[in-house]
Amino acid sequence: MTAPLSRRGGGRAARVAARATALSEDQRPVRPGLIGGRYRPLTEAEVTRIHASALVALDEIGLSGAPASGVEILTGAGARLGEDGRLRFPPALVEDMLAKAARDITLPARDPRFDLDLSGQRVHYGTAGAAVHLVEIDGQTYRESTLQDLHDAARIAHQLDNIHFLQRPMVARDLTDNLELDLNTLYACCSGTTKQVGTSFSDPANVPDALDLLHMIAGGEAAWRARPFVSNSNCFVVPPMKFASESCETMEACIRGGMPVLLLSAGMSGATAPSTIAGAIVQSVAECLAGLVYVNAIAPGHPAIFGTWPFGLDLRTGAMCLGSGEQALLSAGCAQMHAHYGLPGGTAGGAADSKLPDMQAGWEQMCSNVLAGVAGANMVYEAAGMHASLLGFCHESLILGDDLIGQALRCVRGIEVDDMTLALDQMRAVCMGGPGHYLGTPETLDRMHRDHLYPRLGDRTSPRQWEEMDKPDLVAKATARKQEILATRSPARFDAATDKAIRARFPIHLPA
Amino acid sequence: MTAPLSRRGGGRAARVAARATALSEDQRPVRPGLIGGRYRPLTEAEVTRIHASALVALDEIGLSGAPASGVEILTGAGARLGEDGRLRFPPALVEDMLAKAARDITLPARDPRFDLDLSGQRVHYGTAGAAVHLVEIDGQTYRESTLQDLHDAARIAHQLDNIHFLQRPMVARDLTDNLELDLNTLYACCSGTTKQVGTSFSDPANVPDALDLLHMIAGGEAAWRARPFVSNSNCFVVPPMKFASESCETMEACIRGGMPVLLLSAGMSGATAPSTIAGAIVQSVAECLAGLVYVNAIAPGHPAIFGTWPFGLDLRTGAMCLGSGEQALLSAGCAQMHAHYGLPGGTAGGAADSKLPDMQAGWEQMCSNVLAGVAGANMVYEAAGMHASLLGFCHESLILGDDLIGQALRCVRGIEVDDMTLALDQMRAVCMGGPGHYLGTPETLDRMHRDHLYPRLGDRTSPRQWEEMDKPDLVAKATARKQEILATRSPARFDAATDKAIRARFPIHLPA
Repeated sequence: MTAPLSRRGGGRAARVAARATALSEDQRPVRPGLIGGRYRPLTEAEVTRIHASALVALDEIGLSGAPASGVEILTGAGARLGEDGRLRFPPALVEDMLAKAARDITLPARDPRFDLDLSGQRVHYGTAGAAVHLVEIDGQTYRESTLQDLHDAARIAHQLDNIHFLQRPMVARDLTDNLELDLNTLYACCSGTTKQVGTSFSDPANVPDALDLLHMIAGGEAAWRARPFVSNSNCFVVPPMKFASESCETMEACIRGGMPVLLLSAGMSGATAPSTIAGAIVQSVAECLAGLVYVNAIAPGHPAIFGTWPFGLDLRTGAMCLGSGEQALLSAGCAQMHAHYGLPGGTAGGAADSKLPDMQAGWEQMCSNVLAGVAGANMVYEAAGMHASLLGFCHESLILGDDLIGQALRCVRGIEVDDMTLALDQMRAVCMGGPGHYLGTPETLDRMHRDHLYPRLGDRTSPRQWEEMDKPDLVAKATARKQEILATRSPARFDAATDKAIRARFPIHLPA
Repeated sequence: MTAPLSRRGGGRAARVAARATALSEDQRPVRPGLIGGRYRPLTEAEVTRIHASALVALDEIGLSGAPASGVEILTGAGARLGEDGRLRFPPALVEDMLAKAARDITLPARDPRFDLDLSGQRVHYGTAGAAVHLVEIDGQTYRESTLQDLHDAARIAHQLDNIHFLQRPMVARDLTDNLELDLNTLYACCSGTTKQVGTSFSDPANVPDALDLLHMIAGGEAAWRARPFVSNSNCFVVPPMKFASESCETMEACIRGGMPVLLLSAGMSGATAPSTIAGAIVQSVAECLAGLVYVNAIAPGHPAIFGTWPFGLDLRTGAMCLGSGEQALLSAGCAQMHAHYGLPGGTAGGAADSKLPDMQAGWEQMCSNVLAGVAGANMVYEAAGMHASLLGFCHESLILGDDLIGQALRCVRGIEVDDMTLALDQMRAVCMGGPGHYLGTPETLDRMHRDHLYPRLGDRTSPRQWEEMDKPDLVAKATARKQEILATRSPARFDAATDKAIRARFPIHLPA
């Protein structure tokens, strides 16, 4: 079925020539920041109802658990502290802070090529999470993840076009001291990639040292503050509707240190959030609005990402579950709420329940990734490499995720409609006295690389070619690419003097 | 991470009890005919431009290749026959026939439980295609597909909730006589499932015998005409813009025989259709509009499915390619055009380029399936089992596709927003003096089966459980289910007298 086409001639030589032409960055078929939003799982009326319900929740239920500093900041801004210890937020306060909140921000990366423009509904994909296992393909084993695994993930992510940022996807379980963990996590990520990095801190007391480390990497505090290339992934709430006291203190410290904040509300639908999709979105939006008030009461316009990350749950077992259609709807619905507010927003997508990079992992990762993308989420977190409902991270899967996300991004880019793409002139030329096919038309040749995304590891051979190639295994190809990437020196490493100074000051566990 | 939740108590016993409650058909979390359409890859203005361009193409370019009967029918209706042999369609003719075309039809199935309501943007998934290989999991081999393979596919599809119809997915390569092939294909499909069946005919001369066979299965011509449970998948065009003369004659015979018709335009974007997504849609829409004029000129209001099936192509090689983001956009864009016309429409989704049910197959199948679904395609063809860019069909993959499509359908169902689902009352009760979690709320228990779709073969265990279960292999589970299904007697088999009569009349190759 395929051979006759490739033998048609005429077009083939021209296609071979066209293939050799390199594409400039803006001509690539997919890029970071393509604009989503054509998928709207909610009607406008439903969006408005969700917003109104979130306002009611904040006004009537409010949040408990704020630290003393937070109570002072929030009551100072206009929140009411009840006798039950809950802080309640009048709708006018929320609307005021929405007006002050940072919009259309750019999240800087160490290398400006990787800056993330979060304006409008520009879509980016990246890693995230706190997996405690590395999935070893050889032997199909789950073992505790290490600092080296994290660093390797950063180095791999650095080389993948469709992984736009690196939020720390796994925990270095070989470090037991919390301060050492936080500092080494930063070091392992930043020395592995110059893309935007996200991380969390175990203790607010660790933030000053972390900032010192970042100042050293940046070349001074002013340079860091000018381009803060690390953001704080902050679980400021323990849903339902309760501030996480220590994380709030961490957030305050990060804001003072000039670090962008991801306001992360990670309720589990059916356990720590309502089991209905709409209800889980309402609660997550309410919690993030509380966080938004908090941030802007401290520093109006401080860069913050509206991090509604409601997760699914398998209600039969009470276990987390991220590979479901419900999860895709949760994430896509949240993306629509971000767009409603015009705020930079992030949500979770692309995590699999499957333990290995198998067919289930493929369908699970695509479902939430593509729907979050076409719904226009600025940041799709946990988009690659994540297995076992966030418990395991797999380097091979990260690499395959690059291919998978590429196709999702192609969908985000959408359908261009103009005189050229409608192709009436081509149709006339081809059908009436022409060759009867489009293989060699100038339009086909001109756009064969700009319009079409070719997979890097995905297989498109015919069954015969595939047999002749000894039926290449997809995951084995990913392992080969991993080894290839990890055999080279990381281009993100710090210069020798900086590295020496960092190691003199901090107990860095990665070998120099 | 999962254990603490399941140990929280309170909710668990109640959840176990709720789990035992059987769901009625209309309470199932996903069902055939859920309503899509929230994803609109095209703006309204773009839809209008595509329609206008298709009208221009029909008026100025037209189609060549109509059989003598078609020329008579179409010129009789108002088409112009040019000196170049092309039939051109004035816009007014197309608009007139659009007004006459059948809308909101129901495609009957042998068992009325499986009738397909194609009104509005109700979404259904099923098989289709003309694969020439069966993919054997054991040994990972591609071998020529047989009549028994086809029958087995029908029997498997019959048992899968999320496979709503069976269009013949592979060709019985062990039959060399075209008439025998067509009759045995019908027999193999209809004796394997009582779901709606689709098939094509190799020669218009074979239609009378096929109708006789269908009359025998139905219990007479009147019964057949009252509920025609088989539709003709008809490639009435050889794109670009050329009628397939013999297929047109087949279509005429099928229409006279009361058989619903799938007007199938299967251009390959970049070869037999423009390489741009918009252009491929324009041409496919134009071709299907020509088919629509044809059908309604013969029999106004005859049930016809607007079958825009533009396929992708890998322009580097000229080989077909269905697993791409471009394919998902082609299919979703077509679904939006169907909705624009208010016509029952079908498109292709879910076919993989990958040779095996691996991670690539998972992401490829999900991408186009879920986007075609949320775009509201009435019929998503080739949605399960299809590999190697349509060259191979795999029984295990069909079974896994049921799980995959289930999740896609959950996305189609979307987000319900009402007072109950917004859950403010639950939030109040849970957060203020309540248990602080939603695991055991009446609302969670009430909806734990109606809202949440649990996979049948997909794995949601924790890494520890998974290890204790000896790391079950997804594809092996599918093989086990296949063997289980094929070990039982097909519930779709004809009664003994009918079967005997059919075998007396026709050379049926399947064993009795």
